[in-house]
Amino acid sequence: MRFKFPLMAIGLEVAMIILFGLFVQYETDQNVSQQPNSTADTSIDLYPLFQDVHVMVFAGFGFLMTFLRKYGFSSVGINLLIASLGLQWGTIVQGILHSLGEKFHIGIKNMINADFSTVTVLISFGAVLGKTSPMQLLIMTILEIAVFAVNEYLVLKIFGASDTGASMTIHAFGAYFGLAVAGILYRSSLRKGHLNEESVYHSDLFAMIGTLFLWIFWPSFNSAIAEAGNKQYRAIVNTYFSLAACVVIAYAFSSLLESHGKLNMVHVQNATLAGGVAIGTCADMEISPYFAMIVGSIAGMVSVLGFKFLTPLFTTKLRIHDTCGVHNLHGLPGVIGGLASIVAIALETAETSALAMQAAALASSIGTALVGGVITGLVLKTPIWGQPADQDCYDDSVYWEVPMRTEHNHHFGEHGSHNQLEPEA
Amino acid sequence: MRFKFPLMAIGLEVAMIILFGLFVQYETDQNVSQQPNSTADTSIDLYPLFQDVHVMVFAGFGFLMTFLRKYGFSSVGINLLIASLGLQWGTIVQGILHSLGEKFHIGIKNMINADFSTVTVLISFGAVLGKTSPMQLLIMTILEIAVFAVNEYLVLKIFGASDTGASMTIHAFGAYFGLAVAGILYRSSLRKGHLNEESVYHSDLFAMIGTLFLWIFWPSFNSAIAEAGNKQYRAIVNTYFSLAACVVIAYAFSSLLESHGKLNMVHVQNATLAGGVAIGTCADMEISPYFAMIVGSIAGMVSVLGFKFLTPLFTTKLRIHDTCGVHNLHGLPGVIGGLASIVAIALETAETSALAMQAAALASSIGTALVGGVITGLVLKTPIWGQPADQDCYDDSVYWEVPMRTEHNHHFGEHGSHNQLEPEA
Amino acid sequence: MRFKFPLMAIGLEVAMIILFGLFVQYETDQNVSQQPNSTADTSIDLYPLFQDVHVMVFAGFGFLMTFLRKYGFSSVGINLLIASLGLQWGTIVQGILHSLGEKFHIGIKNMINADFSTVTVLISFGAVLGKTSPMQLLIMTILEIAVFAVNEYLVLKIFGASDTGASMTIHAFGAYFGLAVAGILYRSSLRKGHLNEESVYHSDLFAMIGTLFLWIFWPSFNSAIAEAGNKQYRAIVNTYFSLAACVVIAYAFSSLLESHGKLNMVHVQNATLAGGVAIGTCADMEISPYFAMIVGSIAGMVSVLGFKFLTPLFTTKLRIHDTCGVHNLHGLPGVIGGLASIVAIALETAETSALAMQAAALASSIGTALVGGVITGLVLKTPIWGQPADQDCYDDSVYWEVPMRTEHNHHFGEHGSHNQLEPEA
Repeated sequence: MRFKFPLMAIGLEVAMIILFGLFVQYETDQNVSQQPNSTADTSIDLYPLFQDVHVMVFAGFGFLMTFLRKYGFSSVGINLLIASLGLQWGTIVQGILHSLGEKFHIGIKNMINADFSTVTVLISFGAVLGKTSPMQLLIMTILEIAVFAVNEYLVLKIFGASDTGASMTIHAFGAYFGLAVAGILYRSSLRKGHLNEESVYHSDLFAMIGTLFLWIFWPSFNSAIAEAGNKQYRAIVNTYFSLAACVVIAYAFSSLLESHGKLNMVHVQNATLAGGVAIGTCADMEISPYFAMIVGSIAGMVSVLGFKFLTPLFTTKLRIHDTCGVHNLHGLPGVIGGLASIVAIALETAETSALAMQAAALASSIGTALVGGVITGLVLKTPIWGQPADQDCYDDSVYWEVPMRTEHNHHFGEHGSHNQLEPEA
Repeated sequence: MRFKFPLMAIGLEVAMIILFGLFVQYETDQNVSQQPNSTADTSIDLYPLFQDVHVMVFAGFGFLMTFLRKYGFSSVGINLLIASLGLQWGTIVQGILHSLGEKFHIGIKNMINADFSTVTVLISFGAVLGKTSPMQLLIMTILEIAVFAVNEYLVLKIFGASDTGASMTIHAFGAYFGLAVAGILYRSSLRKGHLNEESVYHSDLFAMIGTLFLWIFWPSFNSAIAEAGNKQYRAIVNTYFSLAACVVIAYAFSSLLESHGKLNMVHVQNATLAGGVAIGTCADMEISPYFAMIVGSIAGMVSVLGFKFLTPLFTTKLRIHDTCGVHNLHGLPGVIGGLASIVAIALETAETSALAMQAAALASSIGTALVGGVITGLVLKTPIWGQPADQDCYDDSVYWEVPMRTEHNHHFGEHGSHNQLEPEA
Repeated sequence: MRFKFPLMAIGLEVAMIILFGLFVQYETDQNVSQQPNSTADTSIDLYPLFQDVHVMVFAGFGFLMTFLRKYGFSSVGINLLIASLGLQWGTIVQGILHSLGEKFHIGIKNMINADFSTVTVLISFGAVLGKTSPMQLLIMTILEIAVFAVNEYLVLKIFGASDTGASMTIHAFGAYFGLAVAGILYRSSLRKGHLNEESVYHSDLFAMIGTLFLWIFWPSFNSAIAEAGNKQYRAIVNTYFSLAACVVIAYAFSSLLESHGKLNMVHVQNATLAGGVAIGTCADMEISPYFAMIVGSIAGMVSVLGFKFLTPLFTTKLRIHDTCGVHNLHGLPGVIGGLASIVAIALETAETSALAMQAAALASSIGTALVGGVITGLVLKTPIWGQPADQDCYDDSVYWEVPMRTEHNHHFGEHGSHNQLEPEA
């Protein structure tokens, strides 16, 4: 880390500033009047929805990953770093793709899309959490967002598929990209688990901050870029009820599968959100609230089953170790989202072309993610990026100054007992 | 818990999906055009207010109850479960009551009201926190929301009373319902307190997350369903200043009543919110900001006095043990809210009928709550719902997988000392 | 604390209620129709922006200061107290100044400005954190907000300077006011640090709650009172990108300056926000996004350098001990904000008067703050306000009931080992 990390970060930021100088402009009244058909992009109507998404990206994903007992600084801190870099890079890549290389103007909607683009990286971060260096994650940010933007362009502009809440283009994509990277970076020595790969009581509560803010604002995620009016309204209503049904079913299956019928915090932290992911693609369609609840229920059930049976199998058989279980929260529910959209469209229309395009979008998202993830994994495998040693995985102290004093000392101090670890006295 | 809880949860969710299939539809353009007088319900104007309320319900109430040292998973986790079930059930019950059994359309306002309906259960949950099983709480959710919806219908439609911020119909109702349940479920053996019924330093800080998000968004709670325009604006302004005054007075009385003039976190976590409860009923009336501040001040004072003197008395004399002190945060301030509305209306008008209707609303809310609570308590007393044994109260590990590793180990591990509790090495 | 604190708090609240009774009225339809030019203040268009700011003030600043291992109750609790008093007092002082002593009407914009006025005190609170009593802080609240309102009036109305995001009038002002108070209250015995002036692992995570909510909502802070339309839109966009660039550069310099290239949580918690402060003054100007990113980058760098080199120097040479390092988060970035506005205006116009007014505004903000801070410090130095003894600094237990039981006991209890500290058994 000594100089490589800071120089890489400074270099990337300088590059971003130069690219913004070359390509990015404000929307102005003149721009708008020159293009009378376009809606005025300087409106801040979408700003409350943007802020909800912004909370999800920076507080939601950040705290969701703090469940590990010694990896909270990295979870919430590196989440902030890569999302901050990612939103700049996402603005550039998405903007240039849509403007075909011309200068482009940005508004609140670009900010929402920029935040969205970072979510793919944050999901993949979950798969490799604890086993990668900040430098590797900066590189992954740059590569993944570029691949994401291309796939998104393909899905929405070329295929003309529908994916309002981005179940396929963000969630499935981010999960399979991350799994591919995790597969390439697999460490056999960690196969049987790691001393630090556990939660403690309070780290599980910190993670619930992330879970709850993600859960609460998910209707905004799925509706933020929906067409204003009925579609946006339906995206909100469908997501609200899908998530509620998902929670009840996820709790039921968590209890059903654990010994003595106890609830498991891993399921509560993650599977409760699967309903938000799975309803994404068809959130704005006229599917009826009860259909949204069925989709949410299936997602909650599948997600818990995935944590219970698939994740251990992935680690031992496929040699893919998925730290946060993003396959169960984003991967499988993302696929369910794609399939649900096919069902929803099939119920409405006889045209098979629309169905085919949804299927193509799903296949493209997973395929691009796997290829991009393997290539990214190979780049990250080069042993020059300050990777943590096996025994240092899941431990903040490799990359962070960590307080020496402990909780235990703290309170013992209060009771006046002598404490040998205290540096002054 | 082995099978009863999951089967009950799955059964309830299936019932919800069926009821939604039978009764709940989107608002559509056609619906609106057929009823030219109705405002278009597909508008998302209320969505930011809804999201504020949503944060209060899921993060606010959830974290507020994490103050117990070993009951954080249950507080934040069961809060999520019962609110998720409750919002579906609340949508159904409220909708059917208002549509008189016909199919009905839902919009953002229904979502606000659905969230509101769950608040009654979350309040009652506070009274029985740590002494009930997830199954008991699912049952309470179903019963309480049904009774709530009937009382609300009575108060607003039949009496025509005013209760914008729901001091009476939600806060007083939820508190007295919970107290009645707690009275029926009273455990003599816990009379002298319980080893686990305490906070630790960090659990008190987690609880402050709940307090602050409740406090911050309370103006949205009191104004979300107020009439747009001046009434909504006044509801915001009045609540803002009532809460601010309440904080200053609550701190003053906390210090005044504690030994050595110290501040008490229980008061800070709860009594600071009493001003939001108490101003609820008359929040949208033209009462002047200074009047709102007086109401808030009185509520803050009464709430602290309640924690100091009433709660212990309730436990020992009335045999009602109120874990979170909901009587002081929701019960008494809810009553103050009803009385304040009577004063406010009396200052404006000579008509006694309006005053009588407010008094009837308050009496109905408390009366229905007590009767409903007693009946619910008797149902919950049946010894088939997996109740915790006395010695297991206030302990997550009865219903949750709890991490074995401890904070203490965690940090000792960092300093390299040998740790006998570590499962691997 | 025994009686002085509660009586002072009650006295202040009574005074607020009287002042509100004398001066503060609602906006009404009649007011608006009498002044046809004024926009209707009863609109709640600004309410979502207000709520974002409200989260920053009460959750953001509150949790940001919880990084100390034994001072979390005070950080988040006294933050709530002084902001609640401050927003009432700020409403009064700002209103009377602008109405020239007449009765005035309040709307959402007044609430935003009231919240803003408290931020100055919360910043200064950071400089004296752990070394002051609640009584001293109530006094500081009253004095500082009065001085702030006068300086703000001077800057905006007399000089006609521009300071949308209040880099100068709030951030630089609050920081230098706090430093002046800290200088007067300097305790030589704490020069070499204090046993309690440290973080523990979880206190650093609690602080990140504050950091993230401040970071996320800062675009709302800088745009809340900007002119609706293009200026408000630009304030949002500029702040968004300034903050993102600031994060990347702050991480780079944190790693560059720490031993072994590790990241430092103090920098992550604070310096990442400097970009929001520094872009404040020129946030609504047409400066181009890349310019905003340059300002953010410089602020991030300067802030980290300040923590590393200036803060220790201040403590030892200037005899000013700045607990939270507010000089690095608010002071220096506030000055950068003033200078950036001069550059931005110079690039647009040849008129030197506008430049001179910006410079005058910066000088006035710092000068007024220093004078006001010294006077306030002298008032607070009077040994009648219940100041903590040197050895009791940074310790909640002086002013709060603190739980006896410890994290350590908690978990040991779970493993069934005997625990000598448990009061009951």
